[in-house]
Amino acid sequence: MKYQIISTLFLAAVSWSAPENAQGQHSSAANAPKSSALQEKHFSFVDPMIGSEGLGRVFIGPSYPFGMVKPSPDCGTAPNSGWLPEPVPVTGFSQLHVSGTGGGPKYGNILVMPFTGAPDNQEQSSLREKETVKLGYYSVVLKKNQIKTEITTADKVSFYKFSYPDARTKALKIDAGFFLGEQPVPDAREAQQFVGSEIELVSPTEIRGYSRIRAGWNNGRAYTVYFYAVLDQPVTAYTSWKGKKLFPGLAMQYDSNEKTGLLLSVGGSATQLNMKIGISFLSSLKAKANIEREIPHWNFDQVLAGLQNQWEALFSRIEIDPQATKTQQQLFYTGLYHTMLMPVNRTGENPLWANDQPYYDDFYTLWDTFRTSNPLITLISPLREAEIVNALIDIYKHDGYLPDGRSGNANGRTQGGSHAEVVIADAYVKKLPGIDYEMALEAMLKDATVPPGGNEEQEGRGGLTEYNRLGYVPFSVVRSGNRTVDYAYNDYNIATVAKGLNHRKIFDRFIKQSANWRNLWRDDYIHEGSKGFILPRDASGKWLDTIAYGNSEIQHPTYIYTPLTRETPWYACHWCGFFYEGTSWEYSFSIPHEIPALIFKSGGNDAFRKRLDTFFDKKFYNVANEPSFLTPTLYHWIGRPDLSSLRIRQIIAASYNTSRNGLPGNDDSGAMSSWLAFHMIGLYPNAGQDYYLINSPLLKQTIFHQENGKDFKVIAKGLSDKNVYIKSARLNGKVFNQAWIKHEDIVKGGELVLEMDAAPSSWGTQILPPLSLKP
Amino acid sequence: MKYQIISTLFLAAVSWSAPENAQGQHSSAANAPKSSALQEKHFSFVDPMIGSEGLGRVFIGPSYPFGMVKPSPDCGTAPNSGWLPEPVPVTGFSQLHVSGTGGGPKYGNILVMPFTGAPDNQEQSSLREKETVKLGYYSVVLKKNQIKTEITTADKVSFYKFSYPDARTKALKIDAGFFLGEQPVPDAREAQQFVGSEIELVSPTEIRGYSRIRAGWNNGRAYTVYFYAVLDQPVTAYTSWKGKKLFPGLAMQYDSNEKTGLLLSVGGSATQLNMKIGISFLSSLKAKANIEREIPHWNFDQVLAGLQNQWEALFSRIEIDPQATKTQQQLFYTGLYHTMLMPVNRTGENPLWANDQPYYDDFYTLWDTFRTSNPLITLISPLREAEIVNALIDIYKHDGYLPDGRSGNANGRTQGGSHAEVVIADAYVKKLPGIDYEMALEAMLKDATVPPGGNEEQEGRGGLTEYNRLGYVPFSVVRSGNRTVDYAYNDYNIATVAKGLNHRKIFDRFIKQSANWRNLWRDDYIHEGSKGFILPRDASGKWLDTIAYGNSEIQHPTYIYTPLTRETPWYACHWCGFFYEGTSWEYSFSIPHEIPALIFKSGGNDAFRKRLDTFFDKKFYNVANEPSFLTPTLYHWIGRPDLSSLRIRQIIAASYNTSRNGLPGNDDSGAMSSWLAFHMIGLYPNAGQDYYLINSPLLKQTIFHQENGKDFKVIAKGLSDKNVYIKSARLNGKVFNQAWIKHEDIVKGGELVLEMDAAPSSWGTQILPPLSLKP
Repeated sequence: MKYQIISTLFLAAVSWSAPENAQGQHSSAANAPKSSALQEKHFSFVDPMIGSEGLGRVFIGPSYPFGMVKPSPDCGTAPNSGWLPEPVPVTGFSQLHVSGTGGGPKYGNILVMPFTGAPDNQEQSSLREKETVKLGYYSVVLKKNQIKTEITTADKVSFYKFSYPDARTKALKIDAGFFLGEQPVPDAREAQQFVGSEIELVSPTEIRGYSRIRAGWNNGRAYTVYFYAVLDQPVTAYTSWKGKKLFPGLAMQYDSNEKTGLLLSVGGSATQLNMKIGISFLSSLKAKANIEREIPHWNFDQVLAGLQNQWEALFSRIEIDPQATKTQQQLFYTGLYHTMLMPVNRTGENPLWANDQPYYDDFYTLWDTFRTSNPLITLISPLREAEIVNALIDIYKHDGYLPDGRSGNANGRTQGGSHAEVVIADAYVKKLPGIDYEMALEAMLKDATVPPGGNEEQEGRGGLTEYNRLGYVPFSVVRSGNRTVDYAYNDYNIATVAKGLNHRKIFDRFIKQSANWRNLWRDDYIHEGSKGFILPRDASGKWLDTIAYGNSEIQHPTYIYTPLTRETPWYACHWCGFFYEGTSWEYSFSIPHEIPALIFKSGGNDAFRKRLDTFFDKKFYNVANEPSFLTPTLYHWIGRPDLSSLRIRQIIAASYNTSRNGLPGNDDSGAMSSWLAFHMIGLYPNAGQDYYLINSPLLKQTIFHQENGKDFKVIAKGLSDKNVYIKSARLNGKVFNQAWIKHEDIVKGGELVLEMDAAPSSWGTQILPPLSLKP
Repeated sequence: MKYQIISTLFLAAVSWSAPENAQGQHSSAANAPKSSALQEKHFSFVDPMIGSEGLGRVFIGPSYPFGMVKPSPDCGTAPNSGWLPEPVPVTGFSQLHVSGTGGGPKYGNILVMPFTGAPDNQEQSSLREKETVKLGYYSVVLKKNQIKTEITTADKVSFYKFSYPDARTKALKIDAGFFLGEQPVPDAREAQQFVGSEIELVSPTEIRGYSRIRAGWNNGRAYTVYFYAVLDQPVTAYTSWKGKKLFPGLAMQYDSNEKTGLLLSVGGSATQLNMKIGISFLSSLKAKANIEREIPHWNFDQVLAGLQNQWEALFSRIEIDPQATKTQQQLFYTGLYHTMLMPVNRTGENPLWANDQPYYDDFYTLWDTFRTSNPLITLISPLREAEIVNALIDIYKHDGYLPDGRSGNANGRTQGGSHAEVVIADAYVKKLPGIDYEMALEAMLKDATVPPGGNEEQEGRGGLTEYNRLGYVPFSVVRSGNRTVDYAYNDYNIATVAKGLNHRKIFDRFIKQSANWRNLWRDDYIHEGSKGFILPRDASGKWLDTIAYGNSEIQHPTYIYTPLTRETPWYACHWCGFFYEGTSWEYSFSIPHEIPALIFKSGGNDAFRKRLDTFFDKKFYNVANEPSFLTPTLYHWIGRPDLSSLRIRQIIAASYNTSRNGLPGNDDSGAMSSWLAFHMIGLYPNAGQDYYLINSPLLKQTIFHQENGKDFKVIAKGLSDKNVYIKSARLNGKVFNQAWIKHEDIVKGGELVLEMDAAPSSWGTQILPPLSLKP
């Protein structure tokens, strides 16, 4: 969700697409080393460290697909993912994390840390060495005591293997009070806040307890993480703590709203200690039952292999050209991997209500994921995406609103838009099975008709009353710009489902409202040669060139608002600007349902092309911000898919790579990663609508082995560093002259063959993407 | 909150006031038996069975003042308080209940039931005999197996003594899945819904677990009741269950969203089994710690004595005439008792956030209690009421809104009004110490300025947007009548605090809004000889004689609305009428801050008296409905306190007595009971304002032994069955000609002596109650 200025956008793109295969596709010698790669499992290409440094903030520890437990090193309490690069010391290893998030951290519960010597010191941080990260596997050696820690995990149970230098001084700390994002100020915004914790040595090999934390980025209600830990060697001495006070020989600390933990001396003659930590959101005994169900043994490798198989089963559904470069394989499968870390499947672990519906948490947030992450999951596993949609609907039924963000069993935050609408509409147009779409429509209508009032940071549509009265959100309401633009699209999503379900009156209302973005379109405003922008307007209809802020009745400070204004001034509230994380240049392209109308209002095809060129050439584009995800492909709508493809190649070359800095912004639950994965294939979804734009792939071939048993292939014939333009296409052997393809054509199975060439062609210039629904 | 038609209103009142002392106050012979009563502790007069049958629905089990644990028999799952009169069988004894509530039940968690024989049957209900109920003590003999169960309790720990007919067949069931208000329909409105439960035999004498339940009357989020039970004799055999399935010899059932429990065979040679059950909202270990702190022994009588002492300390703060009749003593102290059962002090047991503020739950609801319960607590213990207010403010700070109702750690429901405003204003004008009134004002302003949107059943002011725009809630919003009337009063409360804190602009706004009730006052409407009523009006300003309901677009059904319409038709939504639980006749008197203006709008003193007389004489008055609590005393404002007193005596005589049917409506956390207690003393508060109306007492003397160490006496000299009118008064020896007294005059200590006479006098007719704040 954070951005960075793109200073390297125009690095040459051509050398990127196949750096390890620079000799060209026909060189069989160059391909030779690849055939051994053919044997490799897809998961082996995943590098969890891509995007771990810089802005990416991805989770680097082991996790099942959509896995509940996500153990990882924690380097202090500040980093969102827990991990930081060396030489920051590691505090310990906690069991729950999120991936790629911005703002205040969440989770970081139940921290364990091996140490040596007497159990008399809570502080056991250490520098690291030999840190190794693979899919499903993390290991590190603690510098100060040379203990090696290895971690893998099942779905709800972490597995730790500690190798000590000396069997006689084995010790372990279990901290039930630790969490990420702690602040010294009580109730600080975005900070997690401590509520309670408990710990109990149940037997020489069993420890149970919990951590109860509230707030964090989404300002959610308290959530409780229960654990049950089992050791394969017995505890011989112990000291518990409450707050800063140590209690040698006291095996239990009950919850009195203080931090608790245990320091354990471990016996046995082995230097190695194994530990399983079951997690549950219901109870410690449920956590224990999770251990018994998931890891009824002590075989670390078996757990790791189980995890690898889970991922492999998913990765193998999208099989890319086996001769793709290692870099491409790494980028692609790591992209898929990041996309399936969240939301988290907590079915059977819902402490709020009980029924037979799936339960998912850590939608963090739909604002980030609706564009590419959810559509990519739909392609990999429509049944999984249907489960996710059903979980959203079930949350609406029990908590009153669909989430836009949700974490720790609580809705929040909203940034703008009620984007569950897009996810539901996307499911509807792609015919995902097993969803009660009438109930889904009811849930969407709640968003669109019942203001969330004082809970507008948690759910629903803030400013809805004004939006429904005026047809736009006036500037007096915070984030009125992106709220208006997003609500208009969300209304289009409602209209889409209403039309399909034959609710004529609902359709009529919402298809009309979907044009509401025009009410903030200031036609005559010219900036950098382009005309017409989404700009602030007050409730009386007046356009605002200068923006007032603050509540003083004596001073009335203002600042000048332009289409390039990104943030409110530092002295004004961060979340109170006209747009959330974006400029008018960005958001004035963000009308995914009425692009022809947008082009018309921008002055026609030529003016729109100029506008797009200005946007990219002058670096107004922000690769790290989701509202601009679709923008590079808008050239499709003026009949220039070649320009879309060119922009995409430039962007990827400049912003994505396999390094630890390889993601250009917060990965946001895989948003950045899934954007990349789609473009590598050559398809790009317009979420909520039933087609994909076709761009020049970066991969010569992609095969979708679909859940329905049917394969769909995308083949880029003749693709090379020079041949980056589509000259012609055939779908199932028939000439295919459009630069987009329906979802149903993929579902049916078949083959899309693109003939690549070194020069732009007239392919795809005449048949523009499907028109929107009309009133 | 429910009502009943008052058919017996005009039973003669005179014989009631001293039925056991009919000879008159000067007969020392008649007084002789009373002197032994002098020795009796106040608590011995409490009869928890008053109001247990009929509409009262009071909790009949033992409880500390504001005590967290409230064990009681449960007779099936339907009754709100758990208990029902014989011959309904008792299912068992659960640990949490509420008192006097209407609508769907709440709590009923962790049910225990002794039985005899093999632990192989979940069903152990039995008919009862020899049921005995005293303050702090409950006992019963189970007819089918002759086990005697005795119960007393500490604050957070229940104590059970089971006496079995045979030591060899002692058995006990512990049901972690039981709860009140279960319905077969999932998610049924007002029904509690099962989420999860867990149970574990930890050692031969210890059992732990929990019950997790959601919804209920306030439709709250899931709450979890943890328990830890300790037996004084060891378990020798056990069968656990999950759902309907029994697991002989399995000591534990983890939470898998199913109902769990244990059937225990108990060993030992004694026929008696003692059990302590600690309760906590944090964890089972905290529940265990509660046992260790509160009952570190096995002495039933000591626990009971501790409870009695707690109550006695509070009762002795209001010492009534020792020569009062037993009936009077019973009614008065049972009234005080009912008033202090709720809200519940859960300080240290808040699972949602942690700080050093008090935490109270089970405001059920402020709508019911603000008028008399909270003011009575303020007189008994201002420090306690200050704690309650601080708890309300802390809930605002962490949950976003002040509660109107709250139970199971969740706000809800609202019926109309945001009555925490009255409670805060009442604290403010009565100068309760240790409250951050600036923060309190902020919390009140949230209610008055930020609509709760989709959460309007939980908190805040539904219809606020319309109220703030139009100055009233239009009929299109449900309960627009009482919402408008209540919001106007709540605005007056805000103005009160704002004025005191010198927030001039806030005061100006809200004192103006406090007149908003006039916007629904239909001046020219005549009904039963009275003119002007609060009546439904649409958003365009049009008055509505017929009310449309339903959402059909084809049919537009209507019904005629009159000032006597009590409910919407049975075929329309129960909570969707113009008033919540009341008629326009009732609510058109319910303007506690602008009674002179109300009298003026009603046509002046004569018309107003006629209106009041009509109201009572024609039985439009509903004694069981809180909005009419102040109405009998409105004669004060036309200079006729004698008529107020007469009405009050009539009402009490007709509606209150010491029988099990002795309360005229749901006691609503002591609302009915505290109304009675005030009137017995001769004082009556107008909550949110700093005075008490003076009426003819039913008691010859009341001494307030105040927390500040100063005594205040109310003496009714010459009171008898005939002398029921106040002829003159002296405050601290000085002539006192007003029928009201400032709160500060009580706080200072002193003596109010009322000379009683057999005929009405001119006393109190000239100096009317204090004028309201004016803009």
